[in-house]
Amino acid sequence: MAGPSETVTRLAEGIARGERRSLAKAITLVESTRADHRMQAEDLLDSLLPRTGNAVRIGITGVPGVGKSTFIEAFGLHLVESGYKVAVLAVDPSSSISGGSILGDKTRMPRLSAAESAFIRPSPSSGSLGGVASHTREAMLLCEAAGYDVVLVETVGVGQSEYVVASMVDFFLVLVLPGGGDELQGIKRGIMELADALAINKADGDAITRAELTAAEYTAAFHLVRSGGVWEPPVVTVSALEGRGMDAVWSIAKDHREKLGASGELERKRADQRRQWFSSLLHEGLSRRFLSRPDVAAAIEEAERGIDGHTVTPTAAARRVLELLD
Amino acid sequence: MAGPSETVTRLAEGIARGERRSLAKAITLVESTRADHRMQAEDLLDSLLPRTGNAVRIGITGVPGVGKSTFIEAFGLHLVESGYKVAVLAVDPSSSISGGSILGDKTRMPRLSAAESAFIRPSPSSGSLGGVASHTREAMLLCEAAGYDVVLVETVGVGQSEYVVASMVDFFLVLVLPGGGDELQGIKRGIMELADALAINKADGDAITRAELTAAEYTAAFHLVRSGGVWEPPVVTVSALEGRGMDAVWSIAKDHREKLGASGELERKRADQRRQWFSSLLHEGLSRRFLSRPDVAAAIEEAERGIDGHTVTPTAAARRVLELLD
Repeated sequence: MAGPSETVTRLAEGIARGERRSLAKAITLVESTRADHRMQAEDLLDSLLPRTGNAVRIGITGVPGVGKSTFIEAFGLHLVESGYKVAVLAVDPSSSISGGSILGDKTRMPRLSAAESAFIRPSPSSGSLGGVASHTREAMLLCEAAGYDVVLVETVGVGQSEYVVASMVDFFLVLVLPGGGDELQGIKRGIMELADALAINKADGDAITRAELTAAEYTAAFHLVRSGGVWEPPVVTVSALEGRGMDAVWSIAKDHREKLGASGELERKRADQRRQWFSSLLHEGLSRRFLSRPDVAAAIEEAERGIDGHTVTPTAAARRVLELLD
Repeated sequence: MAGPSETVTRLAEGIARGERRSLAKAITLVESTRADHRMQAEDLLDSLLPRTGNAVRIGITGVPGVGKSTFIEAFGLHLVESGYKVAVLAVDPSSSISGGSILGDKTRMPRLSAAESAFIRPSPSSGSLGGVASHTREAMLLCEAAGYDVVLVETVGVGQSEYVVASMVDFFLVLVLPGGGDELQGIKRGIMELADALAINKADGDAITRAELTAAEYTAAFHLVRSGGVWEPPVVTVSALEGRGMDAVWSIAKDHREKLGASGELERKRADQRRQWFSSLLHEGLSRRFLSRPDVAAAIEEAERGIDGHTVTPTAAARRVLELLD
């Protein structure tokens, strides 16, 4: 097998030097669906693999209106001012429908995107949720190789995107709004299980007392459902608008990393995530390749005629197509 | 190819005569994973196919505590008393974990299960959600062939089971509790899109006024998100405990069938459902068969070693395994 091409070597060197231009180009390369680009992307990633794994990977979710962009800008600026290099990525499966991502748009985070040591990249805008997520995972590795200390991965909270983002980060932060007593019901089911910390945003002005009350309720809820493990998710109130609480969130994230790092939990978690990523790629790729075989496509067409004509059940029809695999 | 075996012929005849014993045996056959049983099940289903499709297929969901069993018993009895034959099936993917289904348990619905023209069958208790659902779909076809007029399919509301049940029925009924003003937030996201009708259960005693209020709120919400289509989901208050409102629910279901039947929408919906069922069987079966091939299993093991040892990215590893498909 020939070594990496010149393009790949040049990109890898640029990334190792932390050049934004090379990083941006490399991400475009991993997002490409062209077969030759795909091979180059794999060579590039394989060669950079030893340089990856050093960032704190943070996922951020919350319902529309919770102030995700404002939070990410405030949090990112806090990190930048503390001397860290920060990358912002996104998983937005809806961006492939709307034809362009609303996430990662630089106009949403004008101050952060102007910062020298911040790198903002919108969601890959093509493919299934699995495909979008896989490209974001690869982009995260590239950011790590380029020396970014913290990678923030945003999810729009549509469909299963939170699960997918939670499965690629070390630390999953859920933003919620100050509520009116029943807000625990308003949170999407399962999110309480995914969260590593919860921040009540917009705790400013009139809403401060309500936010504190909400925080107490979530703290009680986490104590109920998550106590006894290595980590019981802390709850804080923040105001992204006023930039308050950003230090608290960061120290929770650092504390989390320390605790999980010391127990070996972090490395186990990442190893599981890599295995699951591999497994989902395998399943997706399998369907795509098999179903595009001409003999399979023909058999499927015939099966669908039988199903439409009520002459065969879907189970029998599926079994007959699957016999082509043997 | 030889014709159906004697066992299959006898079962088919018993089902055509509406014999419960044959129906129960046939469902056990379609739930079996043994290859010879599977072939018999397919023969049986293919031979009964012309007798299927005549039932009103109703899916029922709701959070734990909403009173699903009580509702299904009251609704089922109402239908039985109106002269219909009623079958109750369930999709409970958690029953494979607990080792036995809590659903369809006859002690949950003592009066309905004693009725001559009712047939209650617990959830298939093995396999993935897709597998469980596929067996329930086949059981539904068998019930139709045995002359049942209404098939009620219950979901426990765990994970994706509502989506799966909604994808196999004509009419999807969501049960909710009388709430305190914020209950619209408590409903699982996406359910508002799946529902064909909503029943506020436990509208009895002190809760009647609250239930009416809740009904008004849901009506407004449906009007907001679902108006303009062929069908805007009606909202009713019922008391399964007191047996009130069962006639209202049934006349909504009949009205729905009439409207969708007349516009051709019902046949289109069922044709789409069959296609989707076929497609999900194809994807599941494909993974199962490919991944169990010895050469593939060996390649996966090697890939996982590389992933664990950080010498290869999951994307490159997956591509290498998938090359075995060519």
